[in-house]
Amino acid sequence: MKQKTVAAGDSLSTKKRVLITAGGTAEPIDQVRAITNHSTGRLGQEIAKAFLAQTTIEIDYITTRQALLPTANPRVRIHLIESTNDLKEMMEELLTSHTYQAVIHSMAVSDFTPAASLPQEELLQKLYQELTEKPEYLDSFTEFQHLFQELTTVQSTEKKISSASEHLLMVLKQNPKIIHLIKQLQPETRLVGFKLLVGVEKEELLDVARTNLKKNQADYVLANDLESINETQHIGYLVSEDGVVATGHTKQEIAALIVEAVTKGA
Amino acid sequence: MKQKTVAAGDSLSTKKRVLITAGGTAEPIDQVRAITNHSTGRLGQEIAKAFLAQTTIEIDYITTRQALLPTANPRVRIHLIESTNDLKEMMEELLTSHTYQAVIHSMAVSDFTPAASLPQEELLQKLYQELTEKPEYLDSFTEFQHLFQELTTVQSTEKKISSASEHLLMVLKQNPKIIHLIKQLQPETRLVGFKLLVGVEKEELLDVARTNLKKNQADYVLANDLESINETQHIGYLVSEDGVVATGHTKQEIAALIVEAVTKGA
Repeated sequence: MKQKTVAAGDSLSTKKRVLITAGGTAEPIDQVRAITNHSTGRLGQEIAKAFLAQTTIEIDYITTRQALLPTANPRVRIHLIESTNDLKEMMEELLTSHTYQAVIHSMAVSDFTPAASLPQEELLQKLYQELTEKPEYLDSFTEFQHLFQELTTVQSTEKKISSASEHLLMVLKQNPKIIHLIKQLQPETRLVGFKLLVGVEKEELLDVARTNLKKNQADYVLANDLESINETQHIGYLVSEDGVVATGHTKQEIAALIVEAVTKGA
Repeated sequence: MKQKTVAAGDSLSTKKRVLITAGGTAEPIDQVRAITNHSTGRLGQEIAKAFLAQTTIEIDYITTRQALLPTANPRVRIHLIESTNDLKEMMEELLTSHTYQAVIHSMAVSDFTPAASLPQEELLQKLYQELTEKPEYLDSFTEFQHLFQELTTVQSTEKKISSASEHLLMVLKQNPKIIHLIKQLQPETRLVGFKLLVGVEKEELLDVARTNLKKNQADYVLANDLESINETQHIGYLVSEDGVVATGHTKQEIAALIVEAVTKGA
């Protein structure tokens, strides 16, 4: 059963509002290193521009310091974040403060975040010692897995990882799916998700996009392949539950398709 | 025994030349993700500016797209790189083409580069199966280590890592030490290395810097602590074999100290 959320603060304004996310997150490894998802933010720029052509719309725009920003405009509010966790907090704040006609979630969000980093040899030595001293760890896979997890969840006290060992093992844990928050908090909004794959057939790309659309309760998914994106071209398929709605060949075309899809009949 | 390298192309020019590296490397994980070393490139900008005040000096400046660039000047040539491997190739090319009076290596270079990424559960299942089927893998640590290495060096054919598993294990291998190239190729140049630590006592910072200086055959090391760097302040100790040569309190002061140290008597 869907839960309807009425956001506060809307009675003060009759203006329509959209939320755009753009750029890529950076997951901290330590105080000087991060895992970054590459995204220039250029498509987000174009989407903001296309919405602003509709004079009544206001935009909340979540992005990062590394991404290109939309053209300065009093109707665009920029919210800077870094990590997936920052994004989660910002989304929760905005989605519970305003009602959005549409949410265009184009940000490249890291699926995983670093949980621990250990010198490989040190970890293997500990594991070897445990397995030879207590062979019962091999009695079941669950026991064995548990031992490994215990040895890799030792809290590191180092603020910057030392570079002494030849190999480093990094354990990454899955991030919460930020896109799931959107329909949970605003079931009525029109949600556009994005799916980027690399070097796949068109049919596979569209299949993955449709699965993605259902899983994330998105109204549309913009499916694209990194190998069909360059300085002058950006092939994108706007997919709905019924199939491909339209195809864009440039960022401008994709932006126009998205704006048309989420504002029609509104 | 030191090997003296006479670089080609120098007979054409009597101008003095320095090589500056600045910014931070990005090590690719897959086609859309990378491990990045954070560095704004602001100190590099200041160092270039301080050298340019000496009208006879020409600068080769290696940096990344993400870092701030030095002020445009016909005497500065910018060379953009991304990964540590790119940096290595660019350094080799430049150090064998020109003779540098000094090399100021301020770039934050990644110590490790991703070698493999695997879903943790999948890897542990394979490891468990091997260990239970062939207990002889536990006869010696070498055997055990070899098995682990074999299971983690399976070449991934995926261009973008799937996000299906709860935990991901990333194996990182140590990068070659780029700074070692410098004196190998140009034993006569004056080399300034950089050492950044986070939240340590001054004595520890200076000890680490002195060790670093010897190991890398540097003439100077600029030692600094992330916790003493902010918008208006940047504490840096210029360390030589004899101890602390001078202390800078801002990026401008540090830049001036470095330029003075490497150009005196030249």
